[in-house]
Amino acid sequence: MKAGRSRVPTARPFDTAPLRRIPTLMTYCVGLKMRAGLVMLSDTRTNAGVDNISTYRKTTLWGRPGKSVLCLTAAGNLAITQAVVNRLRRGLEDGRHLDDAPDMVSAAEIVGESIRAVHRADGPALEAHDTAFNVTFLLGGQIRGGEIRLFQIYSAGNFIEAMSDTHYLQIGEHKYGKPILDRVMGPETRIHDAIKLAMISMDSTLRSNLSVGMPIDLTVIRTDTFEYDLERRIDETDPYFLSIRQRWSEALRAAYLDLPDPEW
Amino acid sequence: MKAGRSRVPTARPFDTAPLRRIPTLMTYCVGLKMRAGLVMLSDTRTNAGVDNISTYRKTTLWGRPGKSVLCLTAAGNLAITQAVVNRLRRGLEDGRHLDDAPDMVSAAEIVGESIRAVHRADGPALEAHDTAFNVTFLLGGQIRGGEIRLFQIYSAGNFIEAMSDTHYLQIGEHKYGKPILDRVMGPETRIHDAIKLAMISMDSTLRSNLSVGMPIDLTVIRTDTFEYDLERRIDETDPYFLSIRQRWSEALRAAYLDLPDPEW
Repeated sequence: MKAGRSRVPTARPFDTAPLRRIPTLMTYCVGLKMRAGLVMLSDTRTNAGVDNISTYRKTTLWGRPGKSVLCLTAAGNLAITQAVVNRLRRGLEDGRHLDDAPDMVSAAEIVGESIRAVHRADGPALEAHDTAFNVTFLLGGQIRGGEIRLFQIYSAGNFIEAMSDTHYLQIGEHKYGKPILDRVMGPETRIHDAIKLAMISMDSTLRSNLSVGMPIDLTVIRTDTFEYDLERRIDETDPYFLSIRQRWSEALRAAYLDLPDPEW
Repeated sequence: MKAGRSRVPTARPFDTAPLRRIPTLMTYCVGLKMRAGLVMLSDTRTNAGVDNISTYRKTTLWGRPGKSVLCLTAAGNLAITQAVVNRLRRGLEDGRHLDDAPDMVSAAEIVGESIRAVHRADGPALEAHDTAFNVTFLLGGQIRGGEIRLFQIYSAGNFIEAMSDTHYLQIGEHKYGKPILDRVMGPETRIHDAIKLAMISMDSTLRSNLSVGMPIDLTVIRTDTFEYDLERRIDETDPYFLSIRQRWSEALRAAYLDLPDPEW
């Protein structure tokens, strides 16, 4: 991302990301990890400027159900994220494949290596065209013999994991949907409540940022099942999403009206 | 703001603003305008990196109570915002002074002219030191003979106004605190409800972003009074703020638990 560092900026808040003309997944993906399992939700909006928006699925599923279940979501430059996923499908040059990763750390390493391979292949050309190597992934899942885990993988191919103090990870346009997660998400949250939270968090983002758009892709993995509990595309007409959206707005309105007035 | 456009970014989400070592007011200020009046709230955190934070008042009051009441809040580079305020105190070279502006548009123009004067004086030196000319102001108030109005003034000295479809303006770290405003703020909101909303919006931002910090400065102007209805500094021990914070968290938790489970 190249900041427009004009001396006298035009009418735009200074902390707004500059519009980029290269298709980007400026995206909101969230992964919630709790004892009961994993809920991952991604939008489908890509844009190369507000006058050029498209819909791309940002969630891909991996593994060998019965043995391993993995969900990967992407944010960043669309060409780069697709190149990474294509390399993952083909497998690394040393033969490693995400579907057959022996454990979750190895799986995160395979994604990281694929990012680095794309960087080696495309980085110089991107640099020549002044295009930043922007890509971030969330990888969640469980492989037999290990726990359910959730990672965020950076452009550099390195990664962090959601540990005992962190119950969710976000990539892309994460700010609008963060406060509700900070307030109520915890390790004992039920799967169904986590789905609601992910939807509320997504809805807050959809309402406030044009670069995030419907439909959205929901993936649910329950601990120790090694199957996808749910894999669902939700569009604007989905009755459940609409009811969450409406009831949440009403509940917020009621909640704030219910707060006491200041005495001063 | 110069983006760190390294080819292989380190572990940091790509849409996070790079840390700047020049003291910045990375700040959250919000102004809510309704028929009944104006509520403005600003934090006091400045930082030159997370290892160097300070407290500065970002709200200044102007006008001639009884005739005009103006509230100005600032975000951006601290040296620049202070330079602008110093110039406003001194008055423009052509003799215009914010305290004596004949109407709100003229007042916004005077703030814009002061920004441009600072840009002319300091811009070349800032550029030589690779420092962006980052500054944004909110200006709200009422001058006898006119309506209550709210403006956002940019680094270029130009400005926008909150018109009939826009009931609030934000500067600085605006995203965390935006969803609640988008959902419930309107022209008929009561002053006391707007105070609650501003506090909820600020609390959401405080919780999620270290660059925004207590205490906070609240200014309330009621329509056609030409006096400050309230001008209050609120710190971490303020019982009302604490009760809003706690009750809001509880209400959100209750509201989301109350949402129906998905049927699929």
